[in-house]
Amino acid sequence: MTTIGENATIYREQHRVTYYECDQTGRATLATLINIAVLASEDQSDALGLTTAHVQSYGVGWVVTQYAIDVTRMPRQDETVTIAVRGSAYNPYFAFREFWIQDEQGEQLAYITSIWVLMSQEKRKIVKIIPALVTPYHSEAVKRIPRLPRPIHFEADTQTISKPYRVRFFDIDPNRHVNNAHYFDWLLDTLPAAFLLQHDLQHVDVRYENEVQYGHTVTAQVNQLPVAEDGTVTTSHVIQVGEEKCCEVTIRWQPTTQPQA
Amino acid sequence: MTTIGENATIYREQHRVTYYECDQTGRATLATLINIAVLASEDQSDALGLTTAHVQSYGVGWVVTQYAIDVTRMPRQDETVTIAVRGSAYNPYFAFREFWIQDEQGEQLAYITSIWVLMSQEKRKIVKIIPALVTPYHSEAVKRIPRLPRPIHFEADTQTISKPYRVRFFDIDPNRHVNNAHYFDWLLDTLPAAFLLQHDLQHVDVRYENEVQYGHTVTAQVNQLPVAEDGTVTTSHVIQVGEEKCCEVTIRWQPTTQPQA
Repeated sequence: MTTIGENATIYREQHRVTYYECDQTGRATLATLINIAVLASEDQSDALGLTTAHVQSYGVGWVVTQYAIDVTRMPRQDETVTIAVRGSAYNPYFAFREFWIQDEQGEQLAYITSIWVLMSQEKRKIVKIIPALVTPYHSEAVKRIPRLPRPIHFEADTQTISKPYRVRFFDIDPNRHVNNAHYFDWLLDTLPAAFLLQHDLQHVDVRYENEVQYGHTVTAQVNQLPVAEDGTVTTSHVIQVGEEKCCEVTIRWQPTTQPQA
Repeated sequence: MTTIGENATIYREQHRVTYYECDQTGRATLATLINIAVLASEDQSDALGLTTAHVQSYGVGWVVTQYAIDVTRMPRQDETVTIAVRGSAYNPYFAFREFWIQDEQGEQLAYITSIWVLMSQEKRKIVKIIPALVTPYHSEAVKRIPRLPRPIHFEADTQTISKPYRVRFFDIDPNRHVNNAHYFDWLLDTLPAAFLLQHDLQHVDVRYENEVQYGHTVTAQVNQLPVAEDGTVTTSHVIQVGEEKCCEVTIRWQPTTQPQA
């Protein structure tokens, strides 16, 4: 358990999970979980005057490179959840942000850690963190930020399931980039429906490598690893555009406790 | 202007439009507009004890067959809108429901009329409206409900743009059917990005004919009609699975008043 970031300001907001943010079993989708987390972080930034326009006035933008997501229980349709976020720490090149999602009884539903970099808008290269863009969060300046687990290196085999997804106009959000939460819809859609209905997400490691663009057709691939002794199953995913890797993801699942018809 | 349904109970709720409900220009998507309207109607139903489970206890479910959507201005990112809904009237086979979406100043952003039928769950056939399922809305029993405009009959020609869309796991919502607001993402995605960026929706006529299923690949086709004298443009759309028509849509657009980069 890290104690980094204890002095960072925590921002909280509530969100009611709507039917159209849920799958057919009434669980919020993984894309929804990330969408509402990022919404809270944008609201914190706006409240501190660190709007997208202000960040862009430095010629840069924030880009997430990794998520590690612990899910105790997915929020369900019509639940009002509380999202807490803080910009915990930064070093010269990386910022570390944490999110907690709780139900109405204060029980933890999910805990998300993430690594962010500043990208120059013109050169699309990572630049050094600009202190003026992190100190308002009371982010802690540190030498080393926590390392997030690297997803398993994906290797296609004869069991690999592969599906193509064309990036659509409405995959691009007001930040003018493909909303990378949509990657999760592609990644998970490759799995058989029966698997998705019979399993709950327990942990997700995500590493983004290259951005996808409108009009691209990405290929999402998945391998299902052997069932572990404790009954959990791990799936290993990759999204590519041609030979270029866009993101790699590892997910650990447990058999669902609420079996579906 | 119809005066039908004046005695029906109006239900109101607010919704904050999030970044992930908007396109790259910050306008709410058409799918979002329908999603938040239907959410309000489900909340009204729940508040009256007419939950999905209660409706299903009669062996039936509500299915929308037509929308006519007037858009004065699409809600924008971070706006909090008010959605008002009423179950205005019904005759032996059809129910007529209206929605109003307003901004914080009470200006009308959109007005939506819709026709709904009751479908038997077992036989997937339309059945007579069950009064117990509509009288709690103070719906007016009428002989004739307003006729909504029929979309233009779609006819493919040499200029037709056609794109395939595979129905995904996350297109199915907790009602266990493909969320038909997703049809709009397919329908509009067929249009060139430059067209979508340079035009605002003014009016949409939708007619659903057959349901699409998970795993289907639908084909969305669009024709752009000649520009009218007043500068508006009409597009004619169809979604098909093989030779079976699933829905037909006509959209009138005006050149956007906020041109985008």
